[in-house]
Amino acid sequence: MAFDVVIRNGTLLTMDDGMRTIPSGWIGVRGGHIRALEAGNGSPPSATLTIDADGGIVMPGLVNTHTHLPMTLFRGLADDLPLLTWLNEHIFPAEARFIEPQAVHWATLLACAELLLSGTTCCCDGYFHEAAVAGAVADTGLRAVLGQGVIDFPAPGVPDPAENVAHAAEYVRHWQAQSPLIQPSIFCHAPYTCSDRTLTAAKAMAGELGALFQVHAAETRFERDQSIQDKGVSPVAHLDRLGILDPKTLLAHCVWVDAADMDAMARSGCGVAHCPESNMKLASGIAPVASLREKGIPVGLGTDGSASNNNLDLFAEMATAAKLHKVASGDPTALNAASALRMATIEGARAIGMAERIGSLEIGKQADIIVVDTRAPHLTPLYHPDSHLIYAAAGADVRHVLVDGTLRVRDRQLLGIDVNTIMERVNAIARKIQRKPVG
Amino acid sequence: MAFDVVIRNGTLLTMDDGMRTIPSGWIGVRGGHIRALEAGNGSPPSATLTIDADGGIVMPGLVNTHTHLPMTLFRGLADDLPLLTWLNEHIFPAEARFIEPQAVHWATLLACAELLLSGTTCCCDGYFHEAAVAGAVADTGLRAVLGQGVIDFPAPGVPDPAENVAHAAEYVRHWQAQSPLIQPSIFCHAPYTCSDRTLTAAKAMAGELGALFQVHAAETRFERDQSIQDKGVSPVAHLDRLGILDPKTLLAHCVWVDAADMDAMARSGCGVAHCPESNMKLASGIAPVASLREKGIPVGLGTDGSASNNNLDLFAEMATAAKLHKVASGDPTALNAASALRMATIEGARAIGMAERIGSLEIGKQADIIVVDTRAPHLTPLYHPDSHLIYAAAGADVRHVLVDGTLRVRDRQLLGIDVNTIMERVNAIARKIQRKPVG
Repeated sequence: MAFDVVIRNGTLLTMDDGMRTIPSGWIGVRGGHIRALEAGNGSPPSATLTIDADGGIVMPGLVNTHTHLPMTLFRGLADDLPLLTWLNEHIFPAEARFIEPQAVHWATLLACAELLLSGTTCCCDGYFHEAAVAGAVADTGLRAVLGQGVIDFPAPGVPDPAENVAHAAEYVRHWQAQSPLIQPSIFCHAPYTCSDRTLTAAKAMAGELGALFQVHAAETRFERDQSIQDKGVSPVAHLDRLGILDPKTLLAHCVWVDAADMDAMARSGCGVAHCPESNMKLASGIAPVASLREKGIPVGLGTDGSASNNNLDLFAEMATAAKLHKVASGDPTALNAASALRMATIEGARAIGMAERIGSLEIGKQADIIVVDTRAPHLTPLYHPDSHLIYAAAGADVRHVLVDGTLRVRDRQLLGIDVNTIMERVNAIARKIQRKPVG
Repeated sequence: MAFDVVIRNGTLLTMDDGMRTIPSGWIGVRGGHIRALEAGNGSPPSATLTIDADGGIVMPGLVNTHTHLPMTLFRGLADDLPLLTWLNEHIFPAEARFIEPQAVHWATLLACAELLLSGTTCCCDGYFHEAAVAGAVADTGLRAVLGQGVIDFPAPGVPDPAENVAHAAEYVRHWQAQSPLIQPSIFCHAPYTCSDRTLTAAKAMAGELGALFQVHAAETRFERDQSIQDKGVSPVAHLDRLGILDPKTLLAHCVWVDAADMDAMARSGCGVAHCPESNMKLASGIAPVASLREKGIPVGLGTDGSASNNNLDLFAEMATAAKLHKVASGDPTALNAASALRMATIEGARAIGMAERIGSLEIGKQADIIVVDTRAPHLTPLYHPDSHLIYAAAGADVRHVLVDGTLRVRDRQLLGIDVNTIMERVNAIARKIQRKPVG
């Protein structure tokens, strides 16, 4: 059997249901799929491209379940501020002035470069001008679920809110036929910025198109309290009452959810994107991840946008998640290394409805694979790969990255992406943003 | 004026009292000291060695105020366990079997390599066989305060606890004359493992020798409760009653301290090593850093040992600290980027009694300087250097490192340290540890 790509001489962390580890093995890829996973390094078969993992860790590419890719443009523009000051005086005005398709294009390319270099092979995004996001993502070879933003206010690219659902539907229809790596989606901003009518229409349209429906939900205590005051129920109960929760719905954040909310979520089969670093930095709170997972709700990890994190490194996010839930619960056994790894791979894939295709190294799955270099002082010695990936490694330790069987990063260098030009273009836009201070 | 080293073409973050930033400047070093700090890049004077910062950030080397360097040997040996299981079934038995001077030597070299590569130029350590630690640290050119461990049990290198203070004193006397970069110190393990007599004798000896006295204090709720039950007072009040708190005492952790404890600490002038990631991972709790700092207590950052973190990357520690205290307090303005940077530099230096010599870029100070490479996707664009260093950067972004005016890392490569041999030797010891599982 001939392969397109063979990765040899690595410890294979499959992240399959049995969490099988193959201490020294090889993996064969053909036609974009994983076709072989074998122990032993004696003589793996020949391939068009053979990658020596050099004793490193070979694992599924990471799945970032919540991003706003073009927000790399506002990375570090404003920090350490109350949420509403940050949004109303900095982010919203900057978006109104500077978010147009060209800026979105370059900022998205920058985000994809960062994602690939730090081992993420699939992300689930939502923003405005999402067609421009999709075009840029497709150029980089990243796999992605990309949601057109829907909000009941004039927004970049959608000046008339009455058109928001129709605009999103048109985007989804167009991109469903463009690339096997891009899954278009509809992203309603939040229950407090979208009317019941908008939410139900957008969800119905997503259902009709077979697309993932995304929405921010229960991110802050204020949002929860306001929902109870205005609507009589929590944000999640409100979405449930509208019939929006089902396996094709992803709720981002879910910090302020109670037992009844979680029961409704578990019954519905919806997924959750947990963004611990963003929730910490904005002081939103700590999502009840242990309870969510105990109820069988698929919980993935997300970085959120670069304006609120401020990077897209899912290794850092895994490390933070594993430690945060220990100190929050007072239990050092909470969210162990294997669990954090599952959230960033197979469980994240499940949350966004892609677990049949990605999230683990299994024969028949898409070949989204990363190789982590373990020959570094901070990863020496190595007793347990899971532990190192969560408690010692960083995105910069990712050495090779394959998406859909194609090598996108080799020896820490992006292939086919001119990262210097991308940085120059984003810096040029940033200089304009800096010259027009807002707020 | 001729310089040994000039670093040019960088943004200089001085971390001085005024937090002065020089957007494009150069810094001149002679005789191990900073001799010039100037704006402009027209024509910096010639030097034996000129380093082009390439538009990056030039800042003081980081100060890690709490390490156990040889514990790199046990990195990831056991995780996700209750504290006492982890200590009694894994760490203590492994220490009893494998900690001897040669193992300490190689494990310390590994730790120093990791520290230098991630931008730390000074650490404050405590362990057993500290003479072997000091020898290894001196070989690498790192600056360090190195404390010989004192505990009322038979310990590696000190089989008879009755000799523990005398042994430490002998170590301090020897190493006070060995290297300008090494400051020997005495480290009592904790108020619950050292008798009052040991604590007071060790502190008196440290005072006599002019050495820093270190002790773990109030790390866990259990420790605090037990102290109140057995001694009638909190661990910090107990140390205060023994006369141990003064500006030459460093308390590690201080998670479980109350207002009276903090008042006593503030009156005494003692310093604190705050280790957020270790405290999170072991579920010990969250130290009241805002209150400690409001009272004027110098609080540095520490990684703790690699068995409980599991790396020595102070960039990750800064990022975690800044975010953790926001979510813990519900205040997104808590511990802003500049404050986290100060804790990892000048405030850490103050906590260990070295603020006159290191911790900021000021004329006359020792030339402990790092250059952070900002030309990377995850650091683009750059609006505010402080923000990027805390919320977006990682240890791997450190490009050049000077300690005491000597270049120790150039273009991310260690100079004069054979890191491959060090990793091989540590791996060889680790294989023995793995073959003799404990617990």
